[in-house]
Amino acid sequence: MNLLTSLREIVGETNVLVEASDTAPYLVDWRKRYRGAALAVVRPADTGEVARVVGACANAGAPMVPQGGNTGLVGGGTPDSSGAEVVVSLQRMNRVRSVDRDNDTITVEAGCILQSLQDVARQHERLFPLSLAAEGTATIGGNLATNAGGTQVLRYGNTRELTLGLEVVLASGEIWEGLRALRKDNTGYDLKQLFIGSEGTLGIITAATLKLFPLPRAQATAFAAVPSLRAAARLLELARNRADAALTAFEVMSAGCIQRTAIELPTVRVPLPLKAPWYVLMEISDHAGEEHAAGILESILSAALDANAVDDSVIAASLEQSRSLWRIREGIPEAHAKAGGNVKHDISLPVSAVPAFVEETNAQLVRRFSWIEPAVFGHLGDGNLHYNMGTIAGTPIAVAFEHEREINDIVHAAVAARGGSISAEHGIGQLKRAVLPDYKSPLELRLMRQVKQALDPRGLMNPGKLL
Amino acid sequence: MNLLTSLREIVGETNVLVEASDTAPYLVDWRKRYRGAALAVVRPADTGEVARVVGACANAGAPMVPQGGNTGLVGGGTPDSSGAEVVVSLQRMNRVRSVDRDNDTITVEAGCILQSLQDVARQHERLFPLSLAAEGTATIGGNLATNAGGTQVLRYGNTRELTLGLEVVLASGEIWEGLRALRKDNTGYDLKQLFIGSEGTLGIITAATLKLFPLPRAQATAFAAVPSLRAAARLLELARNRADAALTAFEVMSAGCIQRTAIELPTVRVPLPLKAPWYVLMEISDHAGEEHAAGILESILSAALDANAVDDSVIAASLEQSRSLWRIREGIPEAHAKAGGNVKHDISLPVSAVPAFVEETNAQLVRRFSWIEPAVFGHLGDGNLHYNMGTIAGTPIAVAFEHEREINDIVHAAVAARGGSISAEHGIGQLKRAVLPDYKSPLELRLMRQVKQALDPRGLMNPGKLL
Repeated sequence: MNLLTSLREIVGETNVLVEASDTAPYLVDWRKRYRGAALAVVRPADTGEVARVVGACANAGAPMVPQGGNTGLVGGGTPDSSGAEVVVSLQRMNRVRSVDRDNDTITVEAGCILQSLQDVARQHERLFPLSLAAEGTATIGGNLATNAGGTQVLRYGNTRELTLGLEVVLASGEIWEGLRALRKDNTGYDLKQLFIGSEGTLGIITAATLKLFPLPRAQATAFAAVPSLRAAARLLELARNRADAALTAFEVMSAGCIQRTAIELPTVRVPLPLKAPWYVLMEISDHAGEEHAAGILESILSAALDANAVDDSVIAASLEQSRSLWRIREGIPEAHAKAGGNVKHDISLPVSAVPAFVEETNAQLVRRFSWIEPAVFGHLGDGNLHYNMGTIAGTPIAVAFEHEREINDIVHAAVAARGGSISAEHGIGQLKRAVLPDYKSPLELRLMRQVKQALDPRGLMNPGKLL
Repeated sequence: MNLLTSLREIVGETNVLVEASDTAPYLVDWRKRYRGAALAVVRPADTGEVARVVGACANAGAPMVPQGGNTGLVGGGTPDSSGAEVVVSLQRMNRVRSVDRDNDTITVEAGCILQSLQDVARQHERLFPLSLAAEGTATIGGNLATNAGGTQVLRYGNTRELTLGLEVVLASGEIWEGLRALRKDNTGYDLKQLFIGSEGTLGIITAATLKLFPLPRAQATAFAAVPSLRAAARLLELARNRADAALTAFEVMSAGCIQRTAIELPTVRVPLPLKAPWYVLMEISDHAGEEHAAGILESILSAALDANAVDDSVIAASLEQSRSLWRIREGIPEAHAKAGGNVKHDISLPVSAVPAFVEETNAQLVRRFSWIEPAVFGHLGDGNLHYNMGTIAGTPIAVAFEHEREINDIVHAAVAARGGSISAEHGIGQLKRAVLPDYKSPLELRLMRQVKQALDPRGLMNPGKLL
């Protein structure tokens, strides 16, 4: 039987999209850098249908591209241009299967929107802490496939650390029922770890059991001007020593990033004069109350002032003020996009290596390209920087894009020399696949291929991504 | 060349043990339930030597048994009786390679004793939170190979969650250099996850980079009598909501366990009359100070009293009193050992399933064996119970051991029916290898075998363990 006929029998006529007008949104990535074609876009309704879809594709030898909310940043969910691949969209599988309040767990299908998941948790007076810019569109399945990070990793970890169990449709079309809700389970290899962060290349995640946390009673947010990145790192240490797990965010932004954001986004208000080179946004989540949370922040900032780690700071006095501070940080990518974009890097380093990396790599880039202007921000608490490069006034950004390859090479070499990662939270996808062999040992790549071979021997799961 | 000659050339004559008097301590497990023989016990001094030892064994087709502090509870580090296996002891590899205070990481060799690692962290004003009864002898390599748990998992996670990078000698004798010190790294399959908890069956972990945490300034400990396990679970929820990550331990003990401990260990003092069926030991770790920590405990206990979740409680007023409370909990295994032992189970369940599991399984066991007496304690916060079975006064414990198999079957079936694990923190080793297929799906076992085949195709790494 023809593959399309089989797929229609499995998911119903209306859920096998083949017309260009129907498939278009699934064939291009969010940033519109990757465009592909597909034999069809299939939208299964449940795990059984996913299993039968995978089985049918495997029978026909058709490669598959799993797709969630299609908000990925590395082209991991976009098919190639052959028109032979089948996009398997998980969007219809968006049910919350169960919430176990007493176990602090939630079981959801892969197509569940991250924000809905957060909302359901909150309705049960629980926190699901994964939080990132695309949360209104991104699905938890995509978050799992890319091991998404975001702004709360410092306290709660990456998506990997939030996951207790998975249900996965394997390349064979079999369903692995790994939906455990256990904090401790030492009965063999932890198979779920293979699928988390595998970018759809080993199987299709169809559901997950995730950790929930007590909902903090209060949050306090501060915005601080710091004299250097080294000072920001000192402030981080002071904050960790004083607040430990109550420190739920520690974001750093260069003055240039903030200036650009204030210019491009008129609703953004910056509460301090932009006299310092770097700014920190930090947040305390507290279970006693607002006053207590603000007290912790005050004691951190006062110690930091004494240690010359902070020049000036404000503490949000209301939820509205706190949101206003976060808008500065969250507005940065949008502001840069409005201004024409820049050459982006999603890197991580040991926190201890960050200040010297930025100083030395900024200097190296400026020496090489007189027109370059660094626009750096990120999750300093995790050693994760969005180390992006724009151009100074008068030089069009197109000039930077012309030199993108060379800029990337300089940045990634500097990262590698300091034991860092060229993809901290976005993954490899198509974007960094070609350069991965420059930054992984042949042995590690071979191990990864052995795992791929063991779980997807025919190479039908998301080929051309990651490996 | 003869294998023994090769090994002597690699590690030196004195580090290849073959005499019975020298090898004896390596050939029996800690609880003396597994005894084996070995071609030799080899003690390499560094990773290069481990690689050459593995290469030589692989050339000779000799199976290898990696061994750390030999404190495992499931016979995972004991060779079989053939005398053909080579025990590779990591004990000489006990160096701390580096501490990065600003990155909150430490890099240590596999043979480093857990307690030494804790001590070095403390010298740097940092906490390495893994803590378990055998910490004075257990090595971090063994902790990694078994993904050890312990008393602080509630806050800090299992060994897996504490690990950022690994160095591993593969079955081929090649060295995988995976010693990253990054909180975020999404550049492909997370290979370290395969080796953590693999019980030496995929390779030999030779070093690890681990997370450190701020050292708490104060700890407050409470001991509370609770009217039921359900009440203990309510107390847990109250404590989590109020203290969140500051709640670093939540241990539960049946009155019978405490009574036995008070009888067998005269130095143990129980600060409350033993009128309740269950007792809770809980600990708050705090970064403000002792008064603040005690205040949190008081507010939790007062809310619990109002909710009828607690009958009576004491809060330790000094470090000495706190240690005295912990001695009750820590004395339980020793007290039971002194009294002749019991039939042990290391199980986990969703926390929400624990009270009904204990009620119903206790009842089922007592119906089946009129002489049985449950002796249950464990890490309620993680859903992990040491669900052990002794005998009532007048029935020798030997009677329980005669029925060990049937008791295990009843307990494990009840665990499996509630989505639990038959090995929460001790692993599979030899002890539970035969029953594993009863509690894992054929598909999952096949996936595990595929991983084993991919990484150790000749089956030379710790054969006869786990799989």
